[in-house]
Amino acid sequence: MSSLPHLTQAAAELTQEVEVIDEHGARRTLQIPAERALTVYVDKRELVTLMTLGAAPELLVLGYLRNQRLTSEPGQIRSITVDWEVGAAAVHTRGGLPDYEARTAQRVVTTGCGQGTVFGSLMNELDSIELPPADEARISQRALLALLEAMRQQESTYKSAGSVHGCALFRVGADSAELLSFVEDVGRHNAIDTIAGWMWMNGVSARDTAFYTTGRLTSEMVIKSAQMGVPIVVSRSGITQMGYQLAQRLGLALFGRAVNRHFIAYTGFDRFDAQPELASASTG
Amino acid sequence: MSSLPHLTQAAAELTQEVEVIDEHGARRTLQIPAERALTVYVDKRELVTLMTLGAAPELLVLGYLRNQRLTSEPGQIRSITVDWEVGAAAVHTRGGLPDYEARTAQRVVTTGCGQGTVFGSLMNELDSIELPPADEARISQRALLALLEAMRQQESTYKSAGSVHGCALFRVGADSAELLSFVEDVGRHNAIDTIAGWMWMNGVSARDTAFYTTGRLTSEMVIKSAQMGVPIVVSRSGITQMGYQLAQRLGLALFGRAVNRHFIAYTGFDRFDAQPELASASTG
Repeated sequence: MSSLPHLTQAAAELTQEVEVIDEHGARRTLQIPAERALTVYVDKRELVTLMTLGAAPELLVLGYLRNQRLTSEPGQIRSITVDWEVGAAAVHTRGGLPDYEARTAQRVVTTGCGQGTVFGSLMNELDSIELPPADEARISQRALLALLEAMRQQESTYKSAGSVHGCALFRVGADSAELLSFVEDVGRHNAIDTIAGWMWMNGVSARDTAFYTTGRLTSEMVIKSAQMGVPIVVSRSGITQMGYQLAQRLGLALFGRAVNRHFIAYTGFDRFDAQPELASASTG
Repeated sequence: MSSLPHLTQAAAELTQEVEVIDEHGARRTLQIPAERALTVYVDKRELVTLMTLGAAPELLVLGYLRNQRLTSEPGQIRSITVDWEVGAAAVHTRGGLPDYEARTAQRVVTTGCGQGTVFGSLMNELDSIELPPADEARISQRALLALLEAMRQQESTYKSAGSVHGCALFRVGADSAELLSFVEDVGRHNAIDTIAGWMWMNGVSARDTAFYTTGRLTSEMVIKSAQMGVPIVVSRSGITQMGYQLAQRLGLALFGRAVNRHFIAYTGFDRFDAQPELASASTG
Protein backbone atom coordinates (compact mmCIF):
# COMPACT_ATOMS: atom_id res chain seq x y z
CA MET A 1 0.00 0.00 0.00
CA SER A 2 1.33 3.45 -0.87
CA SER A 3 2.27 5.85 1.92
CA LEU A 4 -0.59 7.49 3.80
CA PRO A 5 -1.24 11.24 3.77
CA HIS A 6 0.09 13.37 6.60
CA LEU A 7 -2.75 14.83 8.65
CA THR A 8 -2.72 17.61 11.20
CA GLN A 9 -4.68 17.02 14.42
CA ALA A 10 -6.77 20.18 14.53
CA ALA A 11 -9.61 18.92 16.70
CA ALA A 12 -11.67 21.87 17.95
CA GLU A 13 -13.89 22.65 20.94
CA LEU A 14 -17.04 20.54 20.47
CA THR A 15 -19.53 22.49 22.54
CA GLN A 16 -20.38 26.06 23.53
CA GLU A 17 -22.19 27.16 26.67
CA VAL A 18 -25.17 29.46 26.14
CA GLU A 19 -27.72 31.07 28.46
CA VAL A 20 -31.33 30.03 27.87
CA ILE A 21 -34.77 30.48 29.42
CA ASP A 22 -36.99 27.45 29.99
CA GLU A 23 -40.78 27.20 30.26
CA HIS A 24 -40.58 27.93 33.98
CA GLY A 25 -38.95 31.29 33.22
CA ALA A 26 -35.71 30.10 34.76
CA ARG A 27 -32.45 31.32 33.22
CA ARG A 28 -29.85 28.59 32.99
CA THR A 29 -26.90 27.55 30.86
CA LEU A 30 -26.91 24.80 28.26
CA GLN A 31 -24.27 23.22 26.08
CA ILE A 32 -24.87 23.42 22.32
CA PRO A 33 -22.75 21.71 19.66
CA ALA A 34 -20.10 23.75 17.91
CA GLU A 35 -20.46 24.33 14.16
CA ARG A 36 -17.72 25.66 11.92
CA ALA A 37 -17.29 26.46 8.27
CA LEU A 38 -14.33 24.55 6.83
CA THR A 39 -13.35 25.51 3.28
CA VAL A 40 -11.45 22.78 1.47
CA TYR A 41 -8.69 23.74 -0.95
CA VAL A 42 -7.23 21.07 -3.24
CA ASP A 43 -3.77 22.10 -4.44
CA LYS A 44 -4.68 25.71 -3.55
CA ARG A 45 -7.99 25.67 -5.47
CA GLU A 46 -11.23 26.05 -3.51
CA LEU A 47 -13.43 22.95 -3.73
CA VAL A 48 -16.21 23.13 -1.12
CA THR A 49 -17.20 24.58 2.23
CA LEU A 50 -18.29 22.02 4.83
CA MET A 51 -20.20 22.90 7.98
CA THR A 52 -18.74 20.68 10.68
CA LEU A 53 -18.61 20.05 14.42
CA GLY A 54 -14.84 19.95 14.04
CA ALA A 55 -14.07 16.74 15.93
CA ALA A 56 -11.90 15.18 13.20
CA PRO A 57 -11.66 17.66 10.31
CA GLU A 58 -8.75 15.98 8.52
CA LEU A 59 -10.52 12.61 8.39
CA LEU A 60 -13.68 14.40 7.29
CA VAL A 61 -11.88 16.02 4.35
CA LEU A 62 -10.17 12.76 3.38
CA GLY A 63 -13.44 10.87 3.58
CA TYR A 64 -15.27 13.59 1.66
CA LEU A 65 -12.73 13.34 -1.17
CA ARG A 66 -13.11 9.53 -1.06
CA ASN A 67 -16.91 9.50 -1.04
CA GLN A 68 -17.08 12.14 -3.75
CA ARG A 69 -14.76 9.79 -5.64
CA LEU A 70 -12.26 12.57 -6.24
CA THR A 71 -9.61 10.20 -4.85
CA SER A 72 -9.47 6.44 -5.51
CA GLU A 73 -6.83 5.68 -2.86
CA PRO A 74 -5.29 7.59 0.08
CA GLY A 75 -1.82 7.52 -1.45
CA GLN A 76 -2.98 10.16 -3.93
CA ILE A 77 -3.03 12.67 -1.05
CA ARG A 78 0.26 13.98 0.34
CA SER A 79 -1.15 15.98 3.25
CA ILE A 80 -4.25 17.59 4.73
CA THR A 81 -3.58 20.65 6.89
CA VAL A 82 -6.46 22.18 8.85
CA ASP A 83 -6.15 25.70 10.28
CA TRP A 84 -9.18 26.85 12.29
CA GLU A 85 -7.77 30.40 12.42
CA VAL A 86 -8.79 30.77 8.78
CA GLY A 87 -11.33 27.91 8.65
CA ALA A 88 -9.40 26.20 5.89
CA ALA A 89 -8.31 22.67 5.03
CA ALA A 90 -5.37 22.63 2.62
CA VAL A 91 -5.17 19.39 0.65
CA HIS A 92 -1.92 18.71 -1.16
CA THR A 93 -2.01 15.87 -3.69
CA ARG A 94 0.78 13.82 -5.20
CA GLY A 95 0.66 15.28 -8.68
CA GLY A 96 -3.04 16.05 -8.91
CA LEU A 97 -6.19 13.92 -8.90
CA PRO A 98 -7.41 12.03 -11.99
CA ASP A 99 -10.54 13.39 -13.67
CA TYR A 100 -10.63 16.20 -11.10
CA GLU A 101 -11.86 18.75 -13.61
CA ALA A 102 -14.64 16.54 -14.96
CA ARG A 103 -15.84 15.37 -11.56
CA THR A 104 -15.96 18.85 -10.03
CA ALA A 105 -17.40 20.48 -13.14
CA GLN A 106 -20.26 17.99 -13.05
CA ARG A 107 -21.57 19.71 -9.95
CA VAL A 108 -22.67 22.69 -12.02
CA VAL A 109 -24.97 20.88 -14.37
CA THR A 110 -26.28 18.05 -12.26
CA THR A 111 -27.50 19.63 -9.07
CA GLY A 112 -27.07 22.42 -6.55
CA CYS A 113 -26.43 20.07 -3.69
CA GLY A 114 -23.19 18.28 -2.94
CA GLN A 115 -25.10 15.29 -1.66
CA GLY A 116 -27.19 15.45 -4.79
CA THR A 117 -24.01 15.50 -6.80
CA VAL A 118 -22.86 12.32 -5.11
CA PHE A 119 -26.24 10.84 -5.83
CA GLY A 120 -26.45 12.06 -9.41
CA SER A 121 -23.03 10.86 -10.50
CA LEU A 122 -23.02 7.71 -8.41
CA MET A 123 -26.25 6.52 -9.96
CA ASN A 124 -24.28 5.97 -13.15
CA GLU A 125 -21.82 3.74 -11.31
CA LEU A 126 -24.19 1.73 -9.14
CA ASP A 127 -23.74 -1.39 -11.24
CA SER A 128 -20.01 -1.35 -10.53
CA ILE A 129 -20.69 -1.68 -6.81
CA GLU A 130 -20.39 -5.26 -5.58
CA LEU A 131 -21.07 -6.22 -1.97
CA PRO A 132 -20.00 -9.50 -0.35
CA PRO A 133 -22.64 -12.25 -0.77
CA ALA A 134 -25.33 -12.71 1.88
CA ASP A 135 -23.85 -15.95 3.20
CA GLU A 136 -20.53 -14.20 3.95
CA ALA A 137 -21.70 -10.78 5.21
CA ARG A 138 -24.64 -11.11 7.57
CA ILE A 139 -25.75 -10.20 11.08
CA SER A 140 -27.57 -12.14 13.79
CA GLN A 141 -30.18 -10.61 16.08
CA ARG A 142 -27.79 -11.22 19.00
CA ALA A 143 -25.02 -9.26 17.29
CA LEU A 144 -27.48 -6.50 16.36
CA LEU A 145 -28.58 -6.17 19.98
CA ALA A 146 -24.93 -6.07 21.08
CA LEU A 147 -24.36 -3.24 18.60
CA LEU A 148 -27.34 -1.30 19.96
CA GLU A 149 -26.20 -1.85 23.55
CA ALA A 150 -22.74 -0.51 22.68
CA MET A 151 -24.34 2.61 21.18
CA ARG A 152 -26.55 3.03 24.23
CA GLN A 153 -23.47 3.11 26.46
CA GLN A 154 -21.43 5.34 24.14
CA GLU A 155 -20.55 8.73 25.64
CA SER A 156 -21.34 11.45 23.14
CA THR A 157 -21.71 15.11 22.36
CA TYR A 158 -25.33 14.25 21.58
CA LYS A 159 -25.91 13.29 25.21
CA SER A 160 -24.30 16.49 26.48
CA ALA A 161 -25.47 18.97 23.83
CA GLY A 162 -27.86 17.26 21.42
CA SER A 163 -28.39 18.32 17.82
CA VAL A 164 -25.62 16.23 16.28
CA HIS A 165 -25.69 13.04 14.24
CA GLY A 166 -23.57 10.07 15.24
CA CYS A 167 -22.16 7.37 13.02
CA ALA A 168 -20.25 4.25 14.05
CA LEU A 169 -18.49 1.37 12.35
CA PHE A 170 -18.70 -2.10 13.93
CA ARG A 171 -16.91 -5.38 13.33
CA VAL A 172 -19.70 -7.93 13.38
CA GLY A 173 -19.16 -11.48 14.64
CA ALA A 174 -21.56 -14.39 14.92
CA ASP A 175 -22.91 -13.20 18.28
CA SER A 176 -20.94 -10.01 18.87
CA ALA A 177 -20.38 -6.47 17.58
CA GLU A 178 -17.07 -4.67 18.20
CA LEU A 179 -17.07 -0.85 17.98
CA LEU A 180 -14.22 0.18 15.66
CA SER A 181 -14.89 3.90 15.19
CA PHE A 182 -17.46 6.44 16.38
CA VAL A 183 -17.83 10.00 15.16
CA GLU A 184 -20.36 12.79 15.51
CA ASP A 185 -21.01 15.83 13.36
CA VAL A 186 -23.71 18.41 12.72
CA GLY A 187 -24.44 16.61 9.47
CA ARG A 188 -24.91 12.85 9.11
CA HIS A 189 -23.08 13.02 5.77
CA ASN A 190 -20.03 14.47 7.48
CA ALA A 191 -20.11 11.69 10.08
CA ILE A 192 -20.04 8.88 7.54
CA ASP A 193 -17.44 10.71 5.43
CA THR A 194 -15.22 10.98 8.51
CA ILE A 195 -15.47 7.22 9.06
CA ALA A 196 -14.60 6.68 5.40
CA GLY A 197 -11.44 8.69 6.01
CA TRP A 198 -10.71 6.76 9.22
CA MET A 199 -11.04 3.42 7.37
CA TRP A 200 -8.46 4.54 4.81
CA MET A 201 -5.99 5.82 7.39
CA ASN A 202 -6.28 2.61 9.39
CA GLY A 203 -6.41 0.20 6.45
CA VAL A 204 -9.69 -1.26 7.69
CA SER A 205 -11.50 -3.62 5.33
CA ALA A 206 -15.28 -3.31 5.18
CA ARG A 207 -15.74 -7.06 5.24
CA ASP A 208 -17.76 -8.20 8.29
CA THR A 209 -18.61 -4.60 9.20
CA ALA A 210 -21.85 -2.77 9.83
CA PHE A 211 -22.67 0.93 10.08
CA TYR A 212 -24.73 2.51 12.81
CA THR A 213 -26.20 5.95 12.21
CA THR A 214 -28.58 8.16 14.17
CA GLY A 215 -29.75 9.67 10.87
CA ARG A 216 -32.40 8.40 8.52
CA LEU A 217 -31.71 5.66 5.99
CA THR A 218 -31.61 7.96 2.96
CA SER A 219 -30.37 7.34 -0.56
CA GLU A 220 -27.03 9.03 0.24
CA MET A 221 -26.52 6.88 3.34
CA VAL A 222 -27.20 3.71 1.34
CA ILE A 223 -25.03 4.73 -1.59
CA LYS A 224 -22.07 5.82 0.55
CA SER A 225 -22.29 2.67 2.64
CA ALA A 226 -22.40 0.43 -0.44
CA GLN A 227 -19.59 2.39 -2.05
CA MET A 228 -17.46 1.79 1.05
CA GLY A 229 -18.34 -1.91 0.90
CA VAL A 230 -20.40 -1.97 4.11
CA PRO A 231 -23.44 -4.20 3.44
CA ILE A 232 -25.33 -3.64 6.71
CA VAL A 233 -26.68 -0.32 8.03
CA VAL A 234 -28.50 0.19 11.33
CA SER A 235 -30.34 3.40 12.14
CA ARG A 236 -32.08 4.82 15.18
CA SER A 237 -34.37 6.62 12.71
CA GLY A 238 -36.57 5.52 9.85
CA ILE A 239 -36.16 5.17 6.12
CA THR A 240 -36.97 7.09 2.95
CA GLN A 241 -38.30 5.56 -0.23
CA MET A 242 -35.12 6.07 -2.27
CA GLY A 243 -33.05 4.63 0.55
CA TYR A 244 -35.34 1.60 0.51
CA GLN A 245 -35.29 1.18 -3.27
CA LEU A 246 -31.51 1.60 -3.56
CA ALA A 247 -30.85 -0.84 -0.73
CA GLN A 248 -33.00 -3.46 -2.47
CA ARG A 249 -31.19 -2.88 -5.75
CA LEU A 250 -27.73 -2.99 -4.12
CA GLY A 251 -28.49 -5.83 -1.71
CA LEU A 252 -27.90 -3.95 1.54
CA ALA A 253 -29.51 -4.99 4.80
CA LEU A 254 -31.21 -1.98 6.41
CA PHE A 255 -32.43 -1.90 10.01
CA GLY A 256 -34.34 1.14 11.28
CA ARG A 257 -36.13 2.35 14.43
CA ALA A 258 -33.33 0.49 16.17
CA VAL A 259 -33.08 1.37 19.87
CA ASN A 260 -32.61 -0.81 22.95
CA ARG A 261 -33.98 -4.21 21.86
CA HIS A 262 -36.32 -2.92 19.18
CA PHE A 263 -35.71 -2.68 15.43
CA ILE A 264 -37.35 -3.07 12.05
CA ALA A 265 -35.63 -4.93 9.20
CA TYR A 266 -36.50 -3.09 5.99
CA THR A 267 -34.36 -4.80 3.36
CA GLY A 268 -31.76 -7.55 2.92
CA PHE A 269 -33.62 -10.16 4.97
CA ASP A 270 -31.22 -12.77 3.53
CA ARG A 271 -28.38 -11.16 5.52
CA PHE A 272 -30.29 -11.37 8.81
CA ASP A 273 -30.42 -14.29 11.24
CA ALA A 274 -33.57 -13.60 13.25
CA GLN A 275 -33.58 -14.81 16.87
CA PRO A 276 -37.05 -13.73 17.99
CA GLU A 277 -36.59 -15.42 21.36
CA LEU A 278 -34.21 -12.55 22.23
CA ALA A 279 -37.06 -10.06 21.85
CA SER A 280 -38.97 -11.58 24.73
CA ALA A 281 -36.70 -9.67 27.09
CA SER A 282 -37.90 -6.52 25.38
CA THR A 283 -38.22 -3.54 27.69
CA GLY A 284 -41.10 -2.23 25.62
CA MET B 1 -49.13 43.24 -7.47
CA SER B 2 -48.16 41.67 -10.78
CA SER B 3 -49.98 38.55 -11.96
CA LEU B 4 -49.09 35.31 -10.22
CA PRO B 5 -47.48 32.36 -11.98
CA HIS B 6 -49.67 29.55 -13.25
CA LEU B 7 -48.97 26.32 -11.35
CA THR B 8 -49.95 22.77 -12.13
CA GLN B 9 -51.29 20.67 -9.25
CA ALA B 10 -49.11 17.59 -9.58
CA ALA B 11 -49.36 16.31 -6.02
CA ALA B 12 -48.07 12.73 -5.82
CA GLU B 13 -48.63 9.68 -3.64
CA LEU B 14 -47.06 10.49 -0.26
CA THR B 15 -46.43 7.02 1.11
CA GLN B 16 -45.50 3.53 -0.02
CA GLU B 17 -46.35 0.27 1.74
CA VAL B 18 -43.41 -2.07 2.35
CA GLU B 19 -43.06 -5.47 4.04
CA VAL B 20 -40.76 -5.52 7.06
CA ILE B 21 -39.67 -7.89 9.84
CA ASP B 22 -39.71 -6.72 13.46
CA GLU B 23 -37.68 -7.92 16.45
CA HIS B 24 -40.29 -10.61 17.13
CA GLY B 25 -39.62 -12.10 13.71
CA ALA B 26 -43.09 -11.08 12.55
CA ARG B 27 -43.55 -10.00 8.94
CA ARG B 28 -45.86 -7.02 8.60
CA THR B 29 -46.42 -4.03 6.35
CA LEU B 30 -45.40 -0.45 7.10
CA GLN B 31 -45.91 2.86 5.36
CA ILE B 32 -42.74 4.75 4.39
CA PRO B 33 -42.64 8.27 2.93
CA ALA B 34 -42.32 8.64 -0.82
CA GLU B 35 -39.21 10.33 -2.20
CA ARG B 36 -38.81 11.56 -5.76
CA ALA B 37 -36.16 13.27 -7.81
CA LEU B 38 -37.50 16.49 -9.34
CA THR B 39 -35.22 18.19 -11.83
CA VAL B 40 -35.90 21.90 -12.21
CA TYR B 41 -35.50 23.54 -15.63
CA VAL B 42 -35.60 27.34 -15.87
CA ASP B 43 -36.48 28.40 -19.40
CA LYS B 44 -35.43 24.94 -20.57
CA ARG B 45 -32.04 25.02 -18.82
CA GLU B 46 -31.38 22.53 -16.00
CA LEU B 47 -30.88 24.22 -12.64
CA VAL B 48 -31.04 21.66 -9.84
CA THR B 49 -32.43 18.27 -8.83
CA LEU B 50 -34.46 18.27 -5.62
CA MET B 51 -35.32 15.12 -3.67
CA THR B 52 -38.86 15.63 -2.49
CA LEU B 53 -41.87 13.92 -0.92
CA GLY B 54 -43.92 15.44 -3.74
CA ALA B 55 -46.80 16.94 -1.75
CA ALA B 56 -46.62 20.40 -3.34
CA PRO B 57 -43.87 20.34 -5.97
CA GLU B 58 -44.86 23.60 -7.72
CA LEU B 59 -44.79 25.59 -4.46
CA LEU B 60 -41.48 23.90 -3.61
CA VAL B 61 -39.92 25.03 -6.88
CA LEU B 62 -41.30 28.57 -6.53
CA GLY B 63 -40.06 28.79 -2.94
CA TYR B 64 -36.69 27.34 -3.90
CA LEU B 65 -36.25 30.03 -6.56
CA ARG B 66 -37.31 32.62 -3.98
CA ASN B 67 -35.05 31.42 -1.17
CA GLN B 68 -32.12 31.02 -3.56
CA ARG B 69 -32.91 34.63 -4.50
CA LEU B 70 -33.08 33.74 -8.17
CA THR B 71 -36.45 35.53 -8.21
CA SER B 72 -37.26 38.75 -6.32
CA GLU B 73 -41.05 38.58 -6.88
CA PRO B 74 -43.50 35.92 -8.12
CA GLY B 75 -44.52 37.99 -11.15
CA GLN B 76 -41.15 37.16 -12.72
CA ILE B 77 -42.42 33.57 -13.18
CA ARG B 78 -45.00 32.86 -15.88
CA SER B 79 -45.63 29.20 -15.04
CA ILE B 80 -44.31 26.13 -13.24
CA THR B 81 -45.31 22.81 -14.80
CA VAL B 82 -44.50 19.58 -12.94
CA ASP B 83 -44.61 16.24 -14.77
CA TRP B 84 -43.86 13.23 -12.58
CA GLU B 85 -43.68 10.99 -15.64
CA VAL B 86 -40.31 12.53 -16.40
CA GLY B 87 -39.58 13.90 -12.90
CA ALA B 88 -39.28 17.43 -14.21
CA ALA B 89 -40.46 20.89 -13.20
CA ALA B 90 -40.49 23.30 -16.15
CA VAL B 91 -40.21 26.92 -15.04
CA HIS B 92 -41.08 29.56 -17.63
CA THR B 93 -40.10 33.12 -16.75
CA ARG B 94 -41.35 36.43 -18.07
CA GLY B 95 -38.26 37.37 -20.02
CA GLY B 96 -35.63 35.75 -17.86
CA LEU B 97 -34.40 36.27 -14.30
CA PRO B 98 -32.02 39.12 -13.36
CA ASP B 99 -28.46 38.09 -12.42
CA TYR B 100 -29.39 34.47 -13.16
CA GLU B 101 -25.99 33.69 -14.66
CA ALA B 102 -24.04 35.21 -11.80
CA ARG B 103 -26.16 33.68 -9.05
CA THR B 104 -26.08 30.19 -10.50
CA ALA B 105 -22.41 30.37 -11.48
CA GLN B 106 -21.55 31.24 -7.88
CA ARG B 107 -22.51 27.73 -6.85
CA VAL B 108 -19.42 26.37 -8.53
CA VAL B 109 -16.87 28.34 -6.59
CA THR B 110 -18.50 28.73 -3.21
CA THR B 111 -19.55 25.27 -2.18
CA GLY B 112 -20.72 21.86 -3.29
CA CYS B 113 -24.01 22.11 -1.44
CA GLY B 114 -27.05 24.07 -2.49
CA GLN B 115 -27.82 24.87 1.11
CA GLY B 116 -24.23 25.93 1.51
CA THR B 117 -24.63 28.12 -1.52
CA VAL B 118 -27.56 29.85 0.08
CA PHE B 119 -25.48 30.27 3.19
CA GLY B 120 -22.35 31.38 1.39
CA SER B 121 -23.99 34.01 -0.76
CA LEU B 122 -26.54 35.13 1.81
CA MET B 123 -23.82 35.87 4.34
CA ASN B 124 -22.85 38.79 2.14
CA GLU B 125 -26.39 40.17 2.29
CA LEU B 126 -27.20 39.61 5.95
CA ASP B 127 -26.95 43.29 6.75
CA SER B 128 -29.70 44.06 4.24
CA ILE B 129 -32.14 41.87 6.22
CA GLU B 130 -34.36 43.90 8.54
CA LEU B 131 -36.89 42.24 10.84
CA PRO B 132 -39.78 44.04 12.57
CA PRO B 133 -38.75 45.48 15.98
CA ALA B 134 -39.21 43.38 19.11
CA ASP B 135 -42.11 45.47 20.42
CA GLU B 136 -44.09 44.79 17.22
CA ALA B 137 -43.21 41.14 16.49
CA ARG B 138 -43.27 39.02 19.63
CA ILE B 139 -44.84 35.92 21.09
CA SER B 140 -46.34 35.15 24.50
CA GLN B 141 -45.93 31.82 26.27
CA ARG B 142 -49.69 31.31 25.89
CA ALA B 143 -49.50 31.78 22.13
CA LEU B 144 -46.45 29.51 21.95
CA LEU B 145 -48.32 26.74 23.81
CA ALA B 146 -51.29 27.21 21.47
CA LEU B 147 -48.92 26.76 18.51
CA LEU B 148 -47.47 23.57 20.01
CA GLU B 149 -50.97 22.20 20.73
CA ALA B 150 -51.97 22.86 17.11
CA MET B 151 -48.92 20.94 15.89
CA ARG B 152 -49.65 18.09 18.33
CA GLN B 153 -53.12 17.69 16.80
CA GLN B 154 -51.97 18.09 13.17
CA GLU B 155 -52.49 14.97 11.07
CA SER B 156 -49.32 14.22 9.16
CA THR B 157 -47.36 11.86 7.00
CA TYR B 158 -44.87 11.80 9.88
CA LYS B 159 -47.49 10.16 12.13
CA SER B 160 -48.33 7.56 9.48
CA ALA B 161 -44.92 6.93 7.95
CA GLY B 162 -42.24 8.86 9.89
CA SER B 163 -38.97 10.05 8.40
CA VAL B 164 -40.21 13.38 7.08
CA HIS B 165 -39.71 16.93 8.34
CA GLY B 166 -42.66 19.20 8.91
CA CYS B 167 -42.77 22.98 8.70
CA ALA B 168 -45.67 25.28 9.53
CA LEU B 169 -46.44 28.98 9.37
CA PHE B 170 -48.56 30.51 12.13
CA ARG B 171 -50.27 33.89 12.56
CA VAL B 172 -49.44 34.83 16.13
CA GLY B 173 -51.84 36.86 18.28
CA ALA B 174 -51.53 38.09 21.85
CA ASP B 175 -52.77 34.76 23.25
CA SER B 176 -53.35 32.70 20.13
CA ALA B 177 -51.61 31.04 17.19
CA GLU B 178 -53.48 30.39 13.92
CA LEU B 179 -52.11 27.73 11.59
CA LEU B 180 -51.80 29.25 8.10
CA SER B 181 -49.87 26.58 6.24
CA PHE B 182 -48.37 23.18 7.01
CA VAL B 183 -46.12 21.14 4.74
CA GLU B 184 -43.94 18.07 5.04
CA ASP B 185 -41.01 16.89 2.97
CA VAL B 186 -38.11 14.49 3.17
CA GLY B 187 -35.84 17.51 3.67
CA ARG B 188 -36.48 20.34 6.11
CA HIS B 189 -35.13 22.79 3.53
CA ASN B 190 -37.77 21.69 1.04
CA ALA B 191 -40.49 22.17 3.64
CA ILE B 192 -39.57 25.78 4.40
CA ASP B 193 -39.05 26.52 0.69
CA THR B 194 -42.54 25.21 -0.03
CA ILE B 195 -43.99 27.56 2.58
CA ALA B 196 -42.04 30.42 1.02
CA GLY B 197 -43.75 29.60 -2.27
CA TRP B 198 -47.14 29.36 -0.56
CA MET B 199 -46.68 32.81 1.04
CA TRP B 200 -46.00 34.33 -2.39
CA MET B 201 -48.96 32.65 -4.07
CA ASN B 202 -51.27 33.75 -1.26
CA GLY B 203 -49.82 37.22 -0.74
CA VAL B 204 -49.23 36.51 2.93
CA SER B 205 -47.17 39.06 4.86
CA ALA B 206 -44.66 37.71 7.34
CA ARG B 207 -45.64 40.31 9.94
CA ASP B 208 -47.02 38.67 13.12
CA THR B 209 -46.00 35.22 11.92
CA ALA B 210 -43.90 32.43 13.41
CA PHE B 211 -42.40 29.30 11.90
CA TYR B 212 -42.62 25.85 13.40
CA THR B 213 -40.18 23.19 12.21
CA THR B 214 -39.49 19.64 13.29
CA GLY B 215 -35.89 20.10 12.13
CA ARG B 216 -32.96 21.59 14.00
CA LEU B 217 -32.41 25.33 14.28
CA THR B 218 -29.54 25.47 11.81
CA SER B 219 -27.93 28.41 10.04
CA GLU B 220 -29.98 27.75 6.90
CA MET B 221 -33.24 27.67 8.85
CA VAL B 222 -32.39 30.97 10.55
CA ILE B 223 -31.25 32.65 7.34
CA LYS B 224 -34.24 31.52 5.28
CA SER B 225 -36.64 32.54 8.03
CA ALA B 226 -35.05 35.98 8.36
CA GLN B 227 -34.96 36.40 4.59
CA MET B 228 -38.70 35.71 4.48
CA GLY B 229 -39.24 38.23 7.27
CA VAL B 230 -40.37 35.71 9.90
CA PRO B 231 -38.75 36.78 13.22
CA ILE B 232 -39.82 33.82 15.38
CA VAL B 233 -38.88 30.16 14.86
CA VAL B 234 -40.02 27.24 17.02
CA SER B 235 -38.46 23.79 16.71
CA ARG B 236 -39.16 20.37 18.18
CA SER B 237 -35.42 19.78 17.93
CA GLY B 238 -32.34 21.57 19.21
CA ILE B 239 -29.99 24.20 17.86
CA THR B 240 -26.60 24.39 16.23
CA GLN B 241 -23.95 26.98 17.01
CA MET B 242 -24.23 28.81 13.69
CA GLY B 243 -28.00 28.89 14.00
CA TYR B 244 -27.55 30.41 17.44
CA GLN B 245 -24.97 32.98 16.36
CA LEU B 246 -26.90 34.06 13.25
CA ALA B 247 -30.17 34.40 15.20
CA GLN B 248 -28.44 36.66 17.71
CA ARG B 249 -26.95 38.76 14.92
CA LEU B 250 -30.25 39.01 13.05
CA GLY B 251 -32.48 39.40 16.11
CA LEU B 252 -34.60 36.28 15.67
CA ALA B 253 -36.33 34.59 18.58
CA LEU B 254 -35.50 30.88 18.57
CA PHE B 255 -37.35 28.29 20.66
CA GLY B 256 -36.14 24.69 20.68
CA ARG B 257 -36.95 21.35 22.33
CA ALA B 258 -40.52 22.59 22.01
CA VAL B 259 -43.07 19.82 22.57
CA ASN B 260 -46.29 19.74 24.59
CA ARG B 261 -45.76 22.43 27.25
CA HIS B 262 -41.98 22.33 27.23
CA PHE B 263 -39.55 24.59 25.37
CA ILE B 264 -36.23 26.37 25.63
CA ALA B 265 -35.80 29.98 24.51
CA TYR B 266 -32.35 30.24 22.95
CA THR B 267 -32.28 33.77 21.50
CA GLY B 268 -34.42 36.89 21.10
CA PHE B 269 -35.62 37.01 24.71
CA ASP B 270 -36.87 40.55 23.99
CA ARG B 271 -39.53 39.09 21.67
CA PHE B 272 -40.83 36.67 24.31
CA ASP B 273 -43.46 37.34 26.99
CA ALA B 274 -42.79 34.62 29.56
CA GLN B 275 -45.79 33.36 31.52
CA PRO B 276 -44.15 30.77 33.78
CA GLU B 277 -47.42 30.14 35.61
CA LEU B 278 -48.58 28.29 32.47
CA ALA B 279 -45.77 25.76 32.92
CA SER B 280 -47.19 24.54 36.21
CA ALA B 281 -49.65 22.41 34.24
CA SER B 282 -46.66 20.72 32.69
CA THR B 283 -47.17 17.06 31.90
CA GLY B 284 -43.48 16.38 32.48
